[in-house]
Amino acid sequence: MNEGLDLEGRIRWGMVGGGQGAFIGAVHRMAARLDDRYLLVAGAPSSNSERARASGAQLRLDPERVYTDYRTMARVEAQRPDGIEVVSIVAPNHLHYDVACAFLDAGIHVVCDKPLTRTLAEADALVTRTRASGQLFGVTYPYSGYPLVRHARDLVRSGQLGEIRVVQAEYAQDWLADAVEETSHKQAAWRTDPAQAGEGGCVADIGTHAFHLLGFVTGMNVDQLSAELTRFVPGRRVDDDAQVRLRFANGARGMLWASQVAPGCQNGLMLRVFGTEGSLTFQQEKPDELWLTPLRGAPQRLTRGGLGLSPAALRATRLPAGHPEGFVEAFGQLYRDMADQVEARRHGRLPDPMSLLLPDVVDGANGMQFVDAALRSSREDGAWVEMDGTRWR
Amino acid sequence: MNEGLDLEGRIRWGMVGGGQGAFIGAVHRMAARLDDRYLLVAGAPSSNSERARASGAQLRLDPERVYTDYRTMARVEAQRPDGIEVVSIVAPNHLHYDVACAFLDAGIHVVCDKPLTRTLAEADALVTRTRASGQLFGVTYPYSGYPLVRHARDLVRSGQLGEIRVVQAEYAQDWLADAVEETSHKQAAWRTDPAQAGEGGCVADIGTHAFHLLGFVTGMNVDQLSAELTRFVPGRRVDDDAQVRLRFANGARGMLWASQVAPGCQNGLMLRVFGTEGSLTFQQEKPDELWLTPLRGAPQRLTRGGLGLSPAALRATRLPAGHPEGFVEAFGQLYRDMADQVEARRHGRLPDPMSLLLPDVVDGANGMQFVDAALRSSREDGAWVEMDGTRWR
Amino acid sequence: MNEGLDLEGRIRWGMVGGGQGAFIGAVHRMAARLDDRYLLVAGAPSSNSERARASGAQLRLDPERVYTDYRTMARVEAQRPDGIEVVSIVAPNHLHYDVACAFLDAGIHVVCDKPLTRTLAEADALVTRTRASGQLFGVTYPYSGYPLVRHARDLVRSGQLGEIRVVQAEYAQDWLADAVEETSHKQAAWRTDPAQAGEGGCVADIGTHAFHLLGFVTGMNVDQLSAELTRFVPGRRVDDDAQVRLRFANGARGMLWASQVAPGCQNGLMLRVFGTEGSLTFQQEKPDELWLTPLRGAPQRLTRGGLGLSPAALRATRLPAGHPEGFVEAFGQLYRDMADQVEARRHGRLPDPMSLLLPDVVDGANGMQFVDAALRSSREDGAWVEMDGTRWR
Amino acid sequence: MNEGLDLEGRIRWGMVGGGQGAFIGAVHRMAARLDDRYLLVAGAPSSNSERARASGAQLRLDPERVYTDYRTMARVEAQRPDGIEVVSIVAPNHLHYDVACAFLDAGIHVVCDKPLTRTLAEADALVTRTRASGQLFGVTYPYSGYPLVRHARDLVRSGQLGEIRVVQAEYAQDWLADAVEETSHKQAAWRTDPAQAGEGGCVADIGTHAFHLLGFVTGMNVDQLSAELTRFVPGRRVDDDAQVRLRFANGARGMLWASQVAPGCQNGLMLRVFGTEGSLTFQQEKPDELWLTPLRGAPQRLTRGGLGLSPAALRATRLPAGHPEGFVEAFGQLYRDMADQVEARRHGRLPDPMSLLLPDVVDGANGMQFVDAALRSSREDGAWVEMDGTRWR
Repeated sequence: MNEGLDLEGRIRWGMVGGGQGAFIGAVHRMAARLDDRYLLVAGAPSSNSERARASGAQLRLDPERVYTDYRTMARVEAQRPDGIEVVSIVAPNHLHYDVACAFLDAGIHVVCDKPLTRTLAEADALVTRTRASGQLFGVTYPYSGYPLVRHARDLVRSGQLGEIRVVQAEYAQDWLADAVEETSHKQAAWRTDPAQAGEGGCVADIGTHAFHLLGFVTGMNVDQLSAELTRFVPGRRVDDDAQVRLRFANGARGMLWASQVAPGCQNGLMLRVFGTEGSLTFQQEKPDELWLTPLRGAPQRLTRGGLGLSPAALRATRLPAGHPEGFVEAFGQLYRDMADQVEARRHGRLPDPMSLLLPDVVDGANGMQFVDAALRSSREDGAWVEMDGTRWR
Repeated sequence: MNEGLDLEGRIRWGMVGGGQGAFIGAVHRMAARLDDRYLLVAGAPSSNSERARASGAQLRLDPERVYTDYRTMARVEAQRPDGIEVVSIVAPNHLHYDVACAFLDAGIHVVCDKPLTRTLAEADALVTRTRASGQLFGVTYPYSGYPLVRHARDLVRSGQLGEIRVVQAEYAQDWLADAVEETSHKQAAWRTDPAQAGEGGCVADIGTHAFHLLGFVTGMNVDQLSAELTRFVPGRRVDDDAQVRLRFANGARGMLWASQVAPGCQNGLMLRVFGTEGSLTFQQEKPDELWLTPLRGAPQRLTRGGLGLSPAALRATRLPAGHPEGFVEAFGQLYRDMADQVEARRHGRLPDPMSLLLPDVVDGANGMQFVDAALRSSREDGAWVEMDGTRWR
Repeated sequence: MNEGLDLEGRIRWGMVGGGQGAFIGAVHRMAARLDDRYLLVAGAPSSNSERARASGAQLRLDPERVYTDYRTMARVEAQRPDGIEVVSIVAPNHLHYDVACAFLDAGIHVVCDKPLTRTLAEADALVTRTRASGQLFGVTYPYSGYPLVRHARDLVRSGQLGEIRVVQAEYAQDWLADAVEETSHKQAAWRTDPAQAGEGGCVADIGTHAFHLLGFVTGMNVDQLSAELTRFVPGRRVDDDAQVRLRFANGARGMLWASQVAPGCQNGLMLRVFGTEGSLTFQQEKPDELWLTPLRGAPQRLTRGGLGLSPAALRATRLPAGHPEGFVEAFGQLYRDMADQVEARRHGRLPDPMSLLLPDVVDGANGMQFVDAALRSSREDGAWVEMDGTRWR
Repeated sequence: MNEGLDLEGRIRWGMVGGGQGAFIGAVHRMAARLDDRYLLVAGAPSSNSERARASGAQLRLDPERVYTDYRTMARVEAQRPDGIEVVSIVAPNHLHYDVACAFLDAGIHVVCDKPLTRTLAEADALVTRTRASGQLFGVTYPYSGYPLVRHARDLVRSGQLGEIRVVQAEYAQDWLADAVEETSHKQAAWRTDPAQAGEGGCVADIGTHAFHLLGFVTGMNVDQLSAELTRFVPGRRVDDDAQVRLRFANGARGMLWASQVAPGCQNGLMLRVFGTEGSLTFQQEKPDELWLTPLRGAPQRLTRGGLGLSPAALRATRLPAGHPEGFVEAFGQLYRDMADQVEARRHGRLPDPMSLLLPDVVDGANGMQFVDAALRSSREDGAWVEMDGTRWR
């Protein structure tokens, strides 16, 4: 048992959800282990006690700290002298709000999957609650952890692309091209169930990633959007394709396409940003390269680990150029950022400013604002719907 | 002089526009020469007699058949026993309608650049006029001449992609990212002048190519569109970016992006078609490859000249696989199609059905319907505007 | 008939070989037509009079100028006032020497396919004969006609790569992976018949292209080579795979791989050059791009038609960037070069120095030196064999 | 301190080398942590006690188990009831043999970096010693841990490529294009020092990776090789470029190029295998894709996580398709394989046969045979040198 374990300065960490067979919980754990700054010591992997026990054993948790109820977990851990400092929420969307509140109220920092909540109202409330709690709140938009995404952000900020005019974002997958939710596909089942996933389907599940990415890189606010959400697969209860046009505050225009019915697309998140002086292109499936093209110049293939990258990119780089890094490493960067912030708190100092690139509760809430606006616009036949980029500022 | 020339069965051919320094006229001529089925014997390269003479000499035309006025050319050539059988119109858009009418009325077949006319009304009239004349009318949407585009069309028709759900088309360039029309850039000047180019800028100049391509490949009609046209470059008089959403008759959805202010994009025409059973991707800058991905299968890279291509693709193929063909060859395919049709007429037989893939006046007019609808939608803040795919049927 | 034809300054041109069904003859004709500077007026398409007549008719040749014997053709054409000025030899390799001599002796310029001859001895003799004749002699290594190959050459010469250390060339195909020569595959039959093709198979047929390309771009002489030639397909009479190591005069090292039994390779000619200051990569199947990477810098994708290219590249460019050019256009560049040289002769002036990039008889002979050395080395188990880069200087 | 730590079934693990600033030690640790099956409890990070202490603290090791001498470490750990079960050797090459022997003799399993030893004689001795010890011995050729490399191996074995004819391997880098070893570049300094790295430079450092990869995938033995090793950078004491030709037992032919002076190449390991029925291509920098081309068929882009992959590939896959995995994950697969073998030993059962894909001491020794043969051949001007693929069978 872990009872006697001296954590040697590692962050005491718990997880809600992520039991056996869950995809994203395992990713969180690999990501957190990469740098050896966390130790998983508690969890609520399932509300079913049998399954919770089995998952806990597999994760080598002390049975005493394997819970079937997140409220109990929050309360008990908060009282233990060796209780968790951070909890990661990897349960289905409809649970995010309640679980997060329970831990925030217990004085425990939160890492939460996206989409942040099931509704925009919940998101609003969660921003308020987080602020009141004074706790840290990270949202796992993992694509913002790629070194070259951070470099892209710095390129835009440094003015290398000039004034941004056009933003093209897309995120295409094909795993929902059939009615797989009617088979025993657990992932598909909850992600297409409005009661668990929220009213938005594809637009929330992956559209929010594309939306966050374009804001993260450009730093620009969307003022208005016009959306067309479609349910292509017969019987599906949520959208599986989203086509959105964006108007930015500075006059730039953008398109965002998210689809889960696009054969041949696996995890095709791509961002292209065009400015008066140049452009950049990032494709998630090739995360170690970033294309930068100056106006009237030759396209340059920048690579992670190459020379001339920004401090934020270097900080997020683990391996020399040509040694591929991937999704787990990007995810791991978010856990590093959180660890930096947690440790700064422990020692009463300011965190590394670059650790603040970690998406926070406002970024998560803004994703819900996007989903909400897209749903409303689509219902109104694509009418332009206002967004307020400063809603929580 | 060419007086005594026995054409040996070649098609007697003339050109309006395309004098010294013109880009597209030279392309038409290379394309027509590839297969040696045309002989250029007359032209109206310029309304300026000095420039006309110089261009005529460069083209080795009989000075007698170098005209400064297309009306005279049409009349005189129609009367000569060795008069031209086909005229190609490569003058700015605002002249297309009048020039075409002059030659149609004179009993001469027409090949005309896109966009077909300056307005939809002209396009309507030209369809009527063409039908009344009984002459052939080809429109040079050259991208439909690529062998793999024709194969893509056959793939869709054969049902290999299943029912089409999503169509993504884009055509991005960067040559108008600055106000080059204010310099001595002749191409830029007339293409951004509403009086010469028509009210549509980018949407007409290249949007029509993307629109034709998606219709050519999918065979599907657009029922409604919603467009956002933008003028990014200060002082520009026409749109230089067009973002369009499409609704197809069968319920499919599409996005079309055309831009001339996208640094790093040279001639980035791309089409992606997603169906229930698979998808295809074609990129104009890599015209010798076509990606076909069956649902749940591995992407296949089909190549021009490879095995298993359709008869229409084979017919349009000149070289073995791995020996690149390009834009001139695709353009040349349209001239081949026209030659097949002209020769069939000569001999009173039906043309090769595959030669009818040559875009015709209705395809050209449909492009103008697209431009007109996009302009109207954009003026109305992106309202959905109806299109009638059967308008000229 | 063409009798009365005034050629209007076009070059009077003939062809030996290239009758119906021949691949490369048709390429020569398309290439020569592109710029309208040649007119095909005579030919010896076949020694069979029936086939010659049919081919002649298809090519719209005056029957009087359709020959079944190249010697007659050379003699008669030399005597006609309107006789051909240039002949292109597209017959199988074993005929190159005799045909070339006949036309050179008749005072007619020659364009000849590669490999130049069947043996090195013939190549030696042909250099001598060409020099004695005073006629022009072009060899169609078409890959040297690509604009970006010419730019690559200028990059090396300008020192942008520093001192060259390593050269990697390869040319892989798969069309001879089976014993297709035993079927009715005409191309395969003669190319694998030592009596017609020469003793070298793959090494001569495509190895010479790779060898020429690396010399053309680097300007460096190979001093020694070590080769392993293999016949993989049972029953084949010539090598179908060649693996060669190269030592250059300046101490650089290189590898050259040519294969016709490499499934998945269509026409995979690639050249990579690595120097102390940078590298370049060119792939024939993507001829509109050239990769340039400065040491410690980001790879740049240079494109044909882009800014900053050398005069030699610009001169060879027909279309704006993004409008693909291909093999016929590269081939056409060689015909342009020859036309420039012929016209300079006509007018008694020096040709455009850039037209001298056209590979000449010495380049052709050097290819035979390469074949000869590779055959000898391979016979001696890969022993180093000397080459003399200045043999004909 | 870790004293009270109950390892909960994790493998007790130590490391020799890999102190602060070392690249590969950190990779081993991330790789081992990914699956949480190891716990690092002892180390000899440096022979300098100050540096050892600092590194030990950073690694959170019990100071008692931070050693400055690997012999002491082996002896002490072997005696502790909670002593390490596995040691990883990440010190420079010249130490591998002695360190490995010390731990093998102490009854501790070994994971060792490549090249296995400094000389072939040492490699021979190490094979013998390992066998005598009965301990497990893994060699970290990490590229064999990529799922698609394992799939490639299964493709060859299943006969999908037919009989293999040609193998093309290359591994090109540019980090030694300058004399960086003369600066304070620690990695460069020892890798170019024959006393530490062995007599082979590039051929040993990265050539062995390419050599192992080609054998791993094809399962074929090299019978003879002919090599040209070059020192391009003035003052360098070992080769920085290796050009090798290979003859395989079945008559196949191959080329292997390894270079560390190739600008623009970061970690360019590539393998291409051509058989009578098809080919495959793998590029290490894009490890999530594998190209498979059947003869006369279209190239297929297989992706990690896609359908239809072999059990060995699936077993090595952590994430769904489109979520990039990289070098750490491949490396982690070797640690998984070792963990499977160690745990099977613990429980007295046979290991998962797929865990035996972990390269072992014979694979390591065979790499040294390759280095030795290449050095000898190069000294003899490229003479063919025999290799014995069954030397240790």
